[in-house]
Amino acid sequence: MTNQQTTERDQLLVELRELIADREREGIRGLAERMGPAEWADLIPQLDRDEIATLVDWLPDAQIPDLLTELEPEQAADILRTLAHGDAADVLEEMPPDVAADIVGELEAHEAAPILIQMRPAEAAELRDLLAYPPDTAGGMMTPAFVAVRADAQASDVVAALRRASETAETFSYIYVVDDARRLVGVLSLRNLVLTRPDTPVRELMALETIRVRADIDREAAARLVTDYNFLALPVVDADDRLLGIITQDDVADVLEQEATEDIERLGGQQPLDVPYRLASVALLFRRRIGWLLLLFVASAYTGTVMRAFEQQLQAAIALSLFIPLLIGTGGNIGSQTVTLVVRAMGLGELRLRDIGWVLWKELRVGLAMGAVLALVAFGRADLPLIGLAVGPDVALVVAISIFAISIWAITVAAVLPLVLRRLGVDPAVVSAPLITTVVDGTGLVIYFEIARLVLGL
Amino acid sequence: MTNQQTTERDQLLVELRELIADREREGIRGLAERMGPAEWADLIPQLDRDEIATLVDWLPDAQIPDLLTELEPEQAADILRTLAHGDAADVLEEMPPDVAADIVGELEAHEAAPILIQMRPAEAAELRDLLAYPPDTAGGMMTPAFVAVRADAQASDVVAALRRASETAETFSYIYVVDDARRLVGVLSLRNLVLTRPDTPVRELMALETIRVRADIDREAAARLVTDYNFLALPVVDADDRLLGIITQDDVADVLEQEATEDIERLGGQQPLDVPYRLASVALLFRRRIGWLLLLFVASAYTGTVMRAFEQQLQAAIALSLFIPLLIGTGGNIGSQTVTLVVRAMGLGELRLRDIGWVLWKELRVGLAMGAVLALVAFGRADLPLIGLAVGPDVALVVAISIFAISIWAITVAAVLPLVLRRLGVDPAVVSAPLITTVVDGTGLVIYFEIARLVLGL
Repeated sequence: MTNQQTTERDQLLVELRELIADREREGIRGLAERMGPAEWADLIPQLDRDEIATLVDWLPDAQIPDLLTELEPEQAADILRTLAHGDAADVLEEMPPDVAADIVGELEAHEAAPILIQMRPAEAAELRDLLAYPPDTAGGMMTPAFVAVRADAQASDVVAALRRASETAETFSYIYVVDDARRLVGVLSLRNLVLTRPDTPVRELMALETIRVRADIDREAAARLVTDYNFLALPVVDADDRLLGIITQDDVADVLEQEATEDIERLGGQQPLDVPYRLASVALLFRRRIGWLLLLFVASAYTGTVMRAFEQQLQAAIALSLFIPLLIGTGGNIGSQTVTLVVRAMGLGELRLRDIGWVLWKELRVGLAMGAVLALVAFGRADLPLIGLAVGPDVALVVAISIFAISIWAITVAAVLPLVLRRLGVDPAVVSAPLITTVVDGTGLVIYFEIARLVLGL
Repeated sequence: MTNQQTTERDQLLVELRELIADREREGIRGLAERMGPAEWADLIPQLDRDEIATLVDWLPDAQIPDLLTELEPEQAADILRTLAHGDAADVLEEMPPDVAADIVGELEAHEAAPILIQMRPAEAAELRDLLAYPPDTAGGMMTPAFVAVRADAQASDVVAALRRASETAETFSYIYVVDDARRLVGVLSLRNLVLTRPDTPVRELMALETIRVRADIDREAAARLVTDYNFLALPVVDADDRLLGIITQDDVADVLEQEATEDIERLGGQQPLDVPYRLASVALLFRRRIGWLLLLFVASAYTGTVMRAFEQQLQAAIALSLFIPLLIGTGGNIGSQTVTLVVRAMGLGELRLRDIGWVLWKELRVGLAMGAVLALVAFGRADLPLIGLAVGPDVALVVAISIFAISIWAITVAAVLPLVLRRLGVDPAVVSAPLITTVVDGTGLVIYFEIARLVLGL
């Protein structure tokens, strides 16, 4: 069914693109009527900026909020800038407040002010409140669209409150119970409400022990709390325990996906893009990548110094140079395997600082086994006449011992560095595969040449 | 607040470990009473196998199902094997059916049969049904614990059905409407039910257009459908549209996290572990990593052949060898950046096959810019006397041109290979950073030596 859906959507995309290219206003409007939020969510990331601008021009006004909801905040802000202030205000009012706040957050203060002024005061105030929290905090991902009641209400009052809120509240799974100062005192599940009599007091239905998070905690920590507890929503409070908003499960999946993407990008040796790859401009890609690349280049440049220091040995046994790319490449590969495992396990909260000895002991045993296998293969590659380079048993022995030593060394660096850096307060995800490779390149050469000096007596 | 919780949990873990080490039965039971599902979910992955075995021995029977629910299926199966068949059956009956099925799926048929026989027939049948679907399909992640009613029922009948199901149904967010043949005909949200009169017919309340998935589709596709539509649950049907189960949002976050972990592990140059790092034995780590490592080693061995082919050039200008690690290292780093971006974007569904030209054009421009910057820095490193290696302007020019050419080449390989492999039906995530590095190592050397031959006339 989903394969079929994929094909249908591919056709939809082709159709939409053609309509946009041909500037077929009526066709676009007709197509838009057949599309739901999920179709927009799927198609829009595949359109270019120009195509989206045309789409916004020609879609019925009522569709614009839905469309902007599916865009990245940065991209939606670009579109908002093209609208008249009054139209922009109307669009923001129709969007979920947490999404609207993310978009307004992308605008400069002088761009946002005239739009907020055109909004209904209550909704503008709501947006301003949400904007106070950075996007990477629980406050930044919460929505203020929840339902709250007092403890002295009855079940029937709650149903009435739900009816009033049915337009605006994002989730009905829980109803929160607050006191006069809006402090969170309990929670009531919709299922309990359905199964009770209308005159039951809320006090009897509610659960008192309510897990909550402060608005300023990291959004990833809040998201993991939702998945750990299998909550449908998690209440967010301020320092005085006043209920500010809720985090809903659908936002949690998005946040965890974004955090995984950031980890992957960092592990690849670059700063996170913060936007989907499709929307990243060449200039942005360059900026996010050149920094680490130059740093690694400079760090890697010392391999030249190492090579020069051992120039004498190299000239005495030129055969040694044949194996340099193989040796340092393999060291980098082993280091890359270990660092991905360790950094991901740290990201998932499986590994903590105190585990450093445990991780090292485990990885060392893996390294001993893999190093032994590789040493054997390397000896064959160096010494054997037909499949190998036939450099003779002496150099072959140097290569085999070196690859064993470099395997152990690479695995040690890759296992220890992320945990040590976290102790120093550095995000362990900066320890990328390229960083480990670079560290192992130069040090691996020293290991190789020192072993050559010892074994060959150079 | 969560920082505080972390500290509390760290203390809890230390306490639990001491109690286990001292075999303090009463203490363990006392502690267990203070723990909820989220505490178990957090602590258990940090315990060793032996510690968990002790815990299972000494916890009250009623706690065992909760504990097993938080373990990996493989690990929970190990524990199940240590229990008497009757006890194992009791434990499985108390667990969510989808989790129980995953655990039984880890057992051999001859281990599972005697346990299933001791279970209540209806629950055993439910497990057998679930076991028919592979774990990586929608059927493998669904739960049969949903609420279904007929279209001719009234709202009050639905409430009665909910009351009966309140023990077993995993989610109450939606009530599904089925016909006589159990085919899915509509869906009713709990919020509509709350807001309606008791005698309203279900037919009037339900939505007819219900998104559903077939049990045999890939679980990641099903999970993305749930997040695309912001559903609280997604119905799973068989080929005849009969309702089999539902996928709930909390399972979706878990699946997306696992899929991201698999992508990260593959990008690091290894097969996915399929279990959390903490639970992976040394033998498993070795098996999952040695295959790719050997393959890359063999592939990388041709660098030796390339070096030998250019031995004459190397001897004529030994200074060339100084830059080999730097050049191929940088090529690998650039390739690693690109391949992570492209593979992740493909994993998230942002890039498709037809985008290959678009991606290449984008990456080439990034590569031109980065290559130019690096070439300048490389020239300085090679030619300048104090901070550089002072090899003279000729060799410096060779190095600068080479790094520019290798940048472009690395970025091309890394951008094109994942998309081409998908066209060939290979999972693009096998294109790891180490694979790109290996490909670029040897070919980069050829580029370097050919440029040297041209420029220096060797």
